Amino acid sequence: MREVAIVGAGMTRFGELWQSSLRDMFAEAALAALEQTGEARLDAIYIGNMAAGGFVKQEHIGPLLAGEIGMSGVPAVRVESACASGGAALRTAFFEVASGASDLVLAAGVEKMTDGADVTDVLAMAADQETEAYNGITFPGLYAMIARAHMERHGTTEEELAQVAVKNHVHGALNPNAQFRRKITAEQVMGSALVAAPLRMLHCSPVSDGAAAVLLCPLDRAKEFTDRPVKILASGMATAAMALADREDPAFLGAVQQSAQRAYDMAGLGPGDIQVAEVHDCFSIAEICCTEALGLVENGRGGEAARNGYTSLGGRVPVNTSGGLKSKGHPVGATGIAQAIEICEQLRGTAGERQVPDAKIGLCQNMGGSGASSVVHILGRA
Amino acid sequence: MREVAIVGAGMTRFGELWQSSLRDMFAEAALAALEQTGEARLDAIYIGNMAAGGFVKQEHIGPLLAGEIGMSGVPAVRVESACASGGAALRTAFFEVASGASDLVLAAGVEKMTDGADVTDVLAMAADQETEAYNGITFPGLYAMIARAHMERHGTTEEELAQVAVKNHVHGALNPNAQFRRKITAEQVMGSALVAAPLRMLHCSPVSDGAAAVLLCPLDRAKEFTDRPVKILASGMATAAMALADREDPAFLGAVQQSAQRAYDMAGLGPGDIQVAEVHDCFSIAEICCTEALGLVENGRGGEAARNGYTSLGGRVPVNTSGGLKSKGHPVGATGIAQAIEICEQLRGTAGERQVPDAKIGLCQNMGGSGASSVVHILGRA
Repeated sequence: MREVAIVGAGMTRFGELWQSSLRDMFAEAALAALEQTGEARLDAIYIGNMAAGGFVKQEHIGPLLAGEIGMSGVPAVRVESACASGGAALRTAFFEVASGASDLVLAAGVEKMTDGADVTDVLAMAADQETEAYNGITFPGLYAMIARAHMERHGTTEEELAQVAVKNHVHGALNPNAQFRRKITAEQVMGSALVAAPLRMLHCSPVSDGAAAVLLCPLDRAKEFTDRPVKILASGMATAAMALADREDPAFLGAVQQSAQRAYDMAGLGPGDIQVAEVHDCFSIAEICCTEALGLVENGRGGEAARNGYTSLGGRVPVNTSGGLKSKGHPVGATGIAQAIEICEQLRGTAGERQVPDAKIGLCQNMGGSGASSVVHILGRA
Repeated sequence: MREVAIVGAGMTRFGELWQSSLRDMFAEAALAALEQTGEARLDAIYIGNMAAGGFVKQEHIGPLLAGEIGMSGVPAVRVESACASGGAALRTAFFEVASGASDLVLAAGVEKMTDGADVTDVLAMAADQETEAYNGITFPGLYAMIARAHMERHGTTEEELAQVAVKNHVHGALNPNAQFRRKITAEQVMGSALVAAPLRMLHCSPVSDGAAAVLLCPLDRAKEFTDRPVKILASGMATAAMALADREDPAFLGAVQQSAQRAYDMAGLGPGDIQVAEVHDCFSIAEICCTEALGLVENGRGGEAARNGYTSLGGRVPVNTSGGLKSKGHPVGATGIAQAIEICEQLRGTAGERQVPDAKIGLCQNMGGSGASSVVHILGRA
């Protein structure tokens, strides 16, 4: 395999972007990534997107969005793994460059969620239609069951769940691209409206619009485009049973662990080498389960890690320095790419007030459904 | 790049499969492909699918379908480029094996179209929503405009359009997996109900259910799995303007030509080397335009080639020996993989009554929208 680098990155602000369409947002992110490198050609485009069909009645966004940035002709394909679509797009782009078939490949993600569709209904299509969605369960309900199981097994408290959101808002307040740039208190979280017990509104990531894009090329060409390339050290992916009821332990995200193990093996690294991580906190319980499955914290201690500062900026392994899905926002198809961009910022030393000092190795983990898909990338300063 | 082979293939019959769900069909095709090789492990799964969200309210089919064949854990991702989704899935699988990251990758396609959704509405999402679908145009309408332009420029006749369908039904009558295994006459085609002038019902591919799967591995391991591997000589893809109105000449499918040129360049071959081809005849005019853009027939002579036997079994370059989308059926996400399977059958010498004598090199071309995406693979006897 050829070694692969990320040489450019661009994203929109995440939020309720009423003035921007799907194509506007993609163009803003993609052109920003290209502009950073001074490059104007592409060999291929992969676009992570969960459900433009459901949200804005548009499938086949590959050629549509290639055309939007003046790149009609360039191969452009959509990749979908629900909320892990962005991570999956990065992975497919990585393989195309690694194979030697292409040099300049854009990995992007985009989602337009606020244009009128029933968001809960559309998102529920990421669960098992026959055994879950059809019977009325929604994602807050699924993650509430995961939370209940985690509390039961590990003694995790509602206050620890709240601390994840509090921490991520502290981080997100420092991120100019975040949807919610304000701190919140544990009291506010625990006093917010109950969505699906024990999860409350401020445990949940918001409905967001946004796009993000990174430009990949062979590592040996990276210096043509940037002084600060980031190397993709590894890509790991795994799936698990789609329906929560089919998993042995709902509080344990097996696909996350397996995807991480594959990435660690590929990179020849372990959790102890990770200096900064973006993980998939679609609900606060998800960050707890993911940090455990990634091996970043001890099993059952994810809640405590958020409370005692272990995963905060300044702690042993800062998690979700971007603000995470909770504070930065979660335009589902774009999230996996935005996570990679945050890690690139950290490794390039351009994360500003969110900078983890001298970060050399970072990890991003993107998840689909209630944990049925997980994609992990490990990035390193090149 | 590592050289890559196809070592197993499986598909369902195409048709109105009322007794089979999306997952049933995928499992039937995938397990047949695996059984052919005696292999029970996979490193990854790519699934071409246009719109399970629209058709059966199910996104995130990667983990769902991996689980259905007992492969939870294996990375499984959906790839979407409208009706070119199958071809795009084959291409991404090809890159993963070519990169050296994985050895055993399943490229599959599946679509369940007959379960109650408004098929025309769902398919229209493959056109430009803002400028085309929203204003009421559907795919028969778009291809009718392409047909009108082709008639105007090249003198193509309604009778020539009909001959494409007639030829493909002659072929399809020989294919046990085809949806319509019966011959039709030009008079029947020209007497069938008008859908969008000049296109009539029997110029149009049907609404179909079905699935198809091929197993890829490095060429140097192919003999572990089969005596008759098929080598992927090249993969080419291109896009064009999404909206028909944005193309200089609606009768010329630029993405098809560009994707073919890229594949020919990669393989070091030209149209004259192709002994058998599957091309995307979603409407009879599409086969005419595609055979021209692929260079298999002279520009403007696609209609004549269907009439005079040039593209029939026994002719210079038999096109759509499977029956094509018209007679074999067109479960949109599965089509690109089924095309590759037909070419594999031809190169392995297992095409039965449809066999092109001593076929060594074949091509398959899969298209999305009104020609905004095109994927070409050239396969060779290994």
